[in-house]
Amino acid sequence: MAVYTHVSDQDLKAFIETYDVGHVLSYKGIAEGVENSNYIVHTSTSYFILTLYEKRVEEAELPFFLGLMDHLAHKGIACATPVRNKKGEFLGRLSGRPAALVSFIEGVSITDPNAGHCAQAGAALAELHKAGEDFDLNRPNALDHTSWRKLLTQCGEAVNDIQDDLYTDLERTIDQLEHNWPENLRCGVIHADLFPDNVLFLEDRLSGMIDFYFACNDGLAYDLAICLNAWCFGKSGKTYNIGHGRALIEHYHRHRPLEPAEIAALPVLATGAAMRFCLTRLYDWINHPEDAFVTPKPPIEYVNQLKFHDRAASAQDYGFAG
Amino acid sequence: MAVYTHVSDQDLKAFIETYDVGHVLSYKGIAEGVENSNYIVHTSTSYFILTLYEKRVEEAELPFFLGLMDHLAHKGIACATPVRNKKGEFLGRLSGRPAALVSFIEGVSITDPNAGHCAQAGAALAELHKAGEDFDLNRPNALDHTSWRKLLTQCGEAVNDIQDDLYTDLERTIDQLEHNWPENLRCGVIHADLFPDNVLFLEDRLSGMIDFYFACNDGLAYDLAICLNAWCFGKSGKTYNIGHGRALIEHYHRHRPLEPAEIAALPVLATGAAMRFCLTRLYDWINHPEDAFVTPKPPIEYVNQLKFHDRAASAQDYGFAG
Repeated sequence: MAVYTHVSDQDLKAFIETYDVGHVLSYKGIAEGVENSNYIVHTSTSYFILTLYEKRVEEAELPFFLGLMDHLAHKGIACATPVRNKKGEFLGRLSGRPAALVSFIEGVSITDPNAGHCAQAGAALAELHKAGEDFDLNRPNALDHTSWRKLLTQCGEAVNDIQDDLYTDLERTIDQLEHNWPENLRCGVIHADLFPDNVLFLEDRLSGMIDFYFACNDGLAYDLAICLNAWCFGKSGKTYNIGHGRALIEHYHRHRPLEPAEIAALPVLATGAAMRFCLTRLYDWINHPEDAFVTPKPPIEYVNQLKFHDRAASAQDYGFAG
Repeated sequence: MAVYTHVSDQDLKAFIETYDVGHVLSYKGIAEGVENSNYIVHTSTSYFILTLYEKRVEEAELPFFLGLMDHLAHKGIACATPVRNKKGEFLGRLSGRPAALVSFIEGVSITDPNAGHCAQAGAALAELHKAGEDFDLNRPNALDHTSWRKLLTQCGEAVNDIQDDLYTDLERTIDQLEHNWPENLRCGVIHADLFPDNVLFLEDRLSGMIDFYFACNDGLAYDLAICLNAWCFGKSGKTYNIGHGRALIEHYHRHRPLEPAEIAALPVLATGAAMRFCLTRLYDWINHPEDAFVTPKPPIEYVNQLKFHDRAASAQDYGFAG
């Protein structure tokens, strides 16, 4: 939630002239995105989001992200679409950083989604998965289930400051996840971060998906599990709204029927999804500098989610009706 | 440069319904304004800036600021204009804060102004001063020349960490300022913070002035002196661009002829203007919490400006040609 790189009017003007989008009328740095600097840019032809990629983003991965957004948009998926500059490229340089211009999507993200929002998110996620099938670039999931033990070790005993014995509890859950992780699940391109913040609605109709900077190749049903955690729990992570879960799974299932192996694996995938966000939040919580721009989100929500998942036995516990 | 108060979609929707401006299409928190939270809001009728006033702003002073913007806009001054809600009021409440909606002004602020920008800023400042003549609310300048000694004392000996003997140097300059401060200067409503950040240009034509939250009643020529410091020094505060100064003063003078007493007082007013920003920057620099959202701007620029002013003898040294 910050602008790390300040862009001068002269630099922006020169950058926008490399595109065929008219001239700059206004631009404002926006408080969005933890990793990058973002601006709303209004030109004489339209509105855009300008993103400057900061140090934590690997420049070599940008063609995957931007190529994916372009691929999905051309398949009719409602998502931010990168704009090609006059050279036909998505990526330019601005104020010493790699930078891209993407379409501005009208809509607001929903703070407290209802079942109708969940249903639309589920359907959109399934369509995204189908549209990604013939995308020809690959990006391994750097935060997949094989990365979690190392992340926990890096967090260290400091996690016990959040809750007594948390280190041991998480270690035991990781043991189980490694043991039970489903092999041979259908894989493809996943969004991997489709939280309510990243889905825009216009008058309660889904208008677009944004922030593809965690997208990667992994199990499609794992992406569904990430969404269940993100859309169906109350703020504390203690209560799961099964009506939301039912809407999200059912509408996903209508657009891309879940396979029996995916249905069977849902509890372990949901546990894994909670573990992944629990660990990165713990890591950021423990390691953020005192004078950080961005206050990290507290990890306790995911610790609580893990307790719910520990009690869940089947996809039915998440609202799957078959 | 932060959004302190998060506004949910539901709260924003309810707030916007108290206005006659259509319904919300999108909104983004913007990284602008050190004191308040700001959002760009796009409704079905137009674009607006939504400001939530944070704790450092006195709620009792908001009618002065909003009333002034409205008054100036009705006099044809290019400035952000507050929108009345259905009750006819400028001020509402949103997410527990006083909040107002103002018009969105197209344009960009200029990082490195040229003489043409300075000329337009000077002319616009003079017009602002004339338009403010019949504004009937008053707000004393809380940061006027009588406040500086106390501010320096509050900063304490820590200012010497910036430069050796700075405390004594500033104390001596305050002695001189108190002794030489001109009485009976023409007073009126001043912007008091018309830095290049707060002036927007569209294709090199001034399109609007923003951020009236330091506006108050004080000497009009003191406001001109603030602008000379803000627009005519290089970044380090060491070099004064006399061509910029000439353009700014001359175009101010054309629109509101400076009186002999104002011309004679220019060096002391410019010294005072540099002192005022030097002291608040020192104060913020010394007192900002380690984990602050906002990194304060370094004060050294104004320490250097003070050295220039110490050598200046007359308005001619600032570019005034008579």
